[in-house]
Amino acid sequence: MLDKSCNVFIEELSSKSPVPGGGGASAYVGALGMALGSMVGNLTVGKKKYKDVEADIIELLNRSEVIMNRLKALVKKDAEVFYPLSQAYGLPSSTEEEKKHKETVLQEALIEASMVPLEIAKNCLEAIHLHEEYAKKGTRIAISDVGVGVAFCKAALQGAKLNVLINTKIMKDLELKKRIETELQEIERVGLEKTDQIYNDVEKMLR
Amino acid sequence: MLDKSCNVFIEELSSKSPVPGGGGASAYVGALGMALGSMVGNLTVGKKKYKDVEADIIELLNRSEVIMNRLKALVKKDAEVFYPLSQAYGLPSSTEEEKKHKETVLQEALIEASMVPLEIAKNCLEAIHLHEEYAKKGTRIAISDVGVGVAFCKAALQGAKLNVLINTKIMKDLELKKRIETELQEIERVGLEKTDQIYNDVEKMLR
Repeated sequence: MLDKSCNVFIEELSSKSPVPGGGGASAYVGALGMALGSMVGNLTVGKKKYKDVEADIIELLNRSEVIMNRLKALVKKDAEVFYPLSQAYGLPSSTEEEKKHKETVLQEALIEASMVPLEIAKNCLEAIHLHEEYAKKGTRIAISDVGVGVAFCKAALQGAKLNVLINTKIMKDLELKKRIETELQEIERVGLEKTDQIYNDVEKMLR
Repeated sequence: MLDKSCNVFIEELSSKSPVPGGGGASAYVGALGMALGSMVGNLTVGKKKYKDVEADIIELLNRSEVIMNRLKALVKKDAEVFYPLSQAYGLPSSTEEEKKHKETVLQEALIEASMVPLEIAKNCLEAIHLHEEYAKKGTRIAISDVGVGVAFCKAALQGAKLNVLINTKIMKDLELKKRIETELQEIERVGLEKTDQIYNDVEKMLR
């Protein structure tokens, strides 16, 4: 899906075709955010002024690449789990038997369709943590990009969150629903707090 | 630049090459946000249940396309104005004459380099206003995507903001600096307030 051009991705996102949707787009925006953090790292490596943190930055870059690759894979994964869900929604429900079958298939599909955006949110939180390190150790000349990157990761986390909730909303397994939503809430709480702190610190440096 | 694949865009963004940077990436994420609003519009058109708002939605879709196209053009424009700025930063400054020349060229380049992200922020604000309409009139089955789209537009606005500030910070024309920063502040104030309201309304519908 990410082999397509940026223009085509925008066009397909805006169309009524089922994928990519908000979940996959969130994973993609998270990857773009992480890419900006990495850019700051790449601009720092090799600079005499930042020799003391060079080893840390290289490690950060490696960790960032893992997150970027995971988020890119989750764009695809989100599209994959959406298909069975949309099929389930389309099943007939005229008779009692059909209704029962539809409900079973739907409930099954909802699990993966909730877990994938939860995974996206988790990776966005990790990306936010890495931005905190880039803000501390990265080159000052690109400090604004740390702020932009972390803002993208926050939006991606919030986007993923809505994609979890739209699925857990109708989940019948209340124990699983609660477990997912509790984890999500904690990811959001930490992620938003961290992001706002990093963004505000960056803004202060630019004032 | 947007003719490249999504994967290549991520890769180039993460590299130390000067463009794309945080400004262009913000315009791109704004376009992705607007695309999600449009998706909701496209899923609404033609549906019997939403016949009453169909004309409004078609108008919204046209306005969304204008914003998307402007943001896509601003990705390119941001790269174009960055070039003379980076050249100016690279000018020699050993002698008084060189210093004076560098300062003149730099101050000139800073104007466009501030105006372009300001323009990105303005278009993100318009995109946020359009999301408000999609939230009111768009199909309920894709309501989460309105929330995701508006979160992207907010992050893009905040990203653009930092790219204005990094340039106005060293602007010597204090009148122009004040005019740009005042306009930016107002865009941000309205944009953030609107976004949070739309996002929270969407979240409530999913609870």
